[in-house]
Amino acid sequence: MSEDDPEDGPVLVQRDGAFTTITMNRPRRRNALSRAFLLALTSAFEEAGGTDARGVILAANGPVFSAGHDFADMAGASHADVRDLLRICTDLMRTIQSIPQPVVARVHGLATAAGCQLVASCDLAVAAESAGFAAPGGKGGWFCHTPLVAISHNVGRKRAAEMALTGEVFDAATAADWGLINYAVPDDELDKATHELLQRATQGSPRSKALGKQAMYAQFDRPEQDAYAYAIEVMAASALIPEAQEGMTAFLEKRHPNWPA
Amino acid sequence: MSEDDPEDGPVLVQRDGAFTTITMNRPRRRNALSRAFLLALTSAFEEAGGTDARGVILAANGPVFSAGHDFADMAGASHADVRDLLRICTDLMRTIQSIPQPVVARVHGLATAAGCQLVASCDLAVAAESAGFAAPGGKGGWFCHTPLVAISHNVGRKRAAEMALTGEVFDAATAADWGLINYAVPDDELDKATHELLQRATQGSPRSKALGKQAMYAQFDRPEQDAYAYAIEVMAASALIPEAQEGMTAFLEKRHPNWPA
Amino acid sequence: MSEDDPEDGPVLVQRDGAFTTITMNRPRRRNALSRAFLLALTSAFEEAGGTDARGVILAANGPVFSAGHDFADMAGASHADVRDLLRICTDLMRTIQSIPQPVVARVHGLATAAGCQLVASCDLAVAAESAGFAAPGGKGGWFCHTPLVAISHNVGRKRAAEMALTGEVFDAATAADWGLINYAVPDDELDKATHELLQRATQGSPRSKALGKQAMYAQFDRPEQDAYAYAIEVMAASALIPEAQEGMTAFLEKRHPNWPA
Repeated sequence: MSEDDPEDGPVLVQRDGAFTTITMNRPRRRNALSRAFLLALTSAFEEAGGTDARGVILAANGPVFSAGHDFADMAGASHADVRDLLRICTDLMRTIQSIPQPVVARVHGLATAAGCQLVASCDLAVAAESAGFAAPGGKGGWFCHTPLVAISHNVGRKRAAEMALTGEVFDAATAADWGLINYAVPDDELDKATHELLQRATQGSPRSKALGKQAMYAQFDRPEQDAYAYAIEVMAASALIPEAQEGMTAFLEKRHPNWPA
Repeated sequence: MSEDDPEDGPVLVQRDGAFTTITMNRPRRRNALSRAFLLALTSAFEEAGGTDARGVILAANGPVFSAGHDFADMAGASHADVRDLLRICTDLMRTIQSIPQPVVARVHGLATAAGCQLVASCDLAVAAESAGFAAPGGKGGWFCHTPLVAISHNVGRKRAAEMALTGEVFDAATAADWGLINYAVPDDELDKATHELLQRATQGSPRSKALGKQAMYAQFDRPEQDAYAYAIEVMAASALIPEAQEGMTAFLEKRHPNWPA
Repeated sequence: MSEDDPEDGPVLVQRDGAFTTITMNRPRRRNALSRAFLLALTSAFEEAGGTDARGVILAANGPVFSAGHDFADMAGASHADVRDLLRICTDLMRTIQSIPQPVVARVHGLATAAGCQLVASCDLAVAAESAGFAAPGGKGGWFCHTPLVAISHNVGRKRAAEMALTGEVFDAATAADWGLINYAVPDDELDKATHELLQRATQGSPRSKALGKQAMYAQFDRPEQDAYAYAIEVMAASALIPEAQEGMTAFLEKRHPNWPA
């Protein structure tokens, strides 16, 4: 990547029990999302998605969760280069939502611009009370157009407008109140709270949940009638998979279900 | 319905003054939504919709509001049968939203899976503080795809994902905070609060409100420009109905309006 | 306009430093939105939009922010007239969202019907604690179809339904909690809070922010994939404007940016 990246690489992947943690590890660069770093993160998610991990945590090393795009990549870049970078960035967001496992963002420090978009794009998010969230383009010269897509699909319009137009930092309690994240917790409970939420989100059949996550994003944004048309088909088809039958049979037999591997 | 249903029938319909209460009455089956029960509920709403009742309450007997689909119907059912059941279930949700009267869910106990979808599909909802809401497929083997449609049209994306992926029970205060219900009230005030909300929601001209409810669901989900194109036509046409003229004339003449029967 | 309008005109426009304040000045008519008044407000926003003002405040004189449409215009009007009036009203809402500057509603007193729609249509809104918000058609004879479009694009569905069906007044704290406005503040801090929010929302490059505001509304309501397709193009194109390059260069050079006039 660059001489600024630590020796152990810019993306750390650690499997611990049922969970894989993907850690952004460019602390001196404030985990800025350079082209190479975005591609490395996307690969890490794709690879974790192909394992039998039950859940994935997105974490960060250093004082900042992620400062967004790397302006060193941007100043003087051509239109084609910037467009390509933004497509690669959007691919990362979609990859997070397309892998079968629930993904939780574990946020400490600042999550700004595309770094805030990352949080908004994870299925779930827990933040330390001292964390902050911003779409800083609003107070600069390059508006946060793409981060705002993810942010405005999580929070109400007036709040999205306030984040986007002011560009200022909003604290974790506000982010939780607005629905940008699930929980704001005391800093020293961040790991515990992240694991507890992922534990809760990974109960049950992995195969059923993978189908559920995929269908959830497919029906979000659809008008209710379209969403139902889609959901009915997925739900009917998935009633016949062994996991669904086992779940229902176990319930009726008042025993714990056994999920296929 | 079945030998588990009480003698007075699985769906009780009671007219009391201006309001009709439709009560799910399969307490021993936790008001599970079997095929016959879904059809009976849909008929009850259609019939109430055709009366001069001003408002409708959806209530439940027994310890549970509704546990959702009846797994006894599902285990071993064919694809076609499940699909048919889900269509019938969706028809109930749409019927609630299509009848002319405001419908308030009066929720005590657990509202899970399609039972939670019922609450999300009523125009308004009041719950006892001790009530709980869940999309439990997320921790089982059959993901709550169709309930999630209704839930995710009421609450933000991160919260919908948390409900869907964890499958856990969320309390009434949380449901009110997220906008899944309108109010969480002390258990012994549930009836009073439900009636008060319905009283407030049934003021004014029934014919105007019926048109308003229909148009409200038609414009929800539409992009703003489409929604305005629709709403302008409905609002212009409805300005000429006698109720609208009476309301405006009464306002200008500083007297109480008289609504046509 | 009419003999009820004060001598200084129904729409006051005052430039004070970087901000333009547009004040509704039909206090005796409760700032009712007559046809002529709507057209005058739209012109005032269009004109302010063409100046070098950095931000715009929408304020009101008299005890009421705005009571919505003027029933004196409506009672007995033809279908074509009402339709025309609603189109003109919707044009005002779109104009507010289409001018380059951030627009903040400064709300005191009641904002009802199209008056509430005005608040919902401003980019941002601050209200005095004593202010109130209502879609009163729900308790009358003419449902608030068009105001509900703007309201329901700001607040959750159950809350929109409660406002629309009850027609009752909701206080400023509730409006802030639901996301209809950004802040509810003590009455004597309304001016200060409005200016502070607009100050925060007008930092940075005006040209970049104008593009940002335009794109924000263009992507709101779009499904995520469509919104990204749009936002990527706008963001890539806007990376090359001098403001974006200046912002990034200043950041990399650790100096304050200079925005082009």
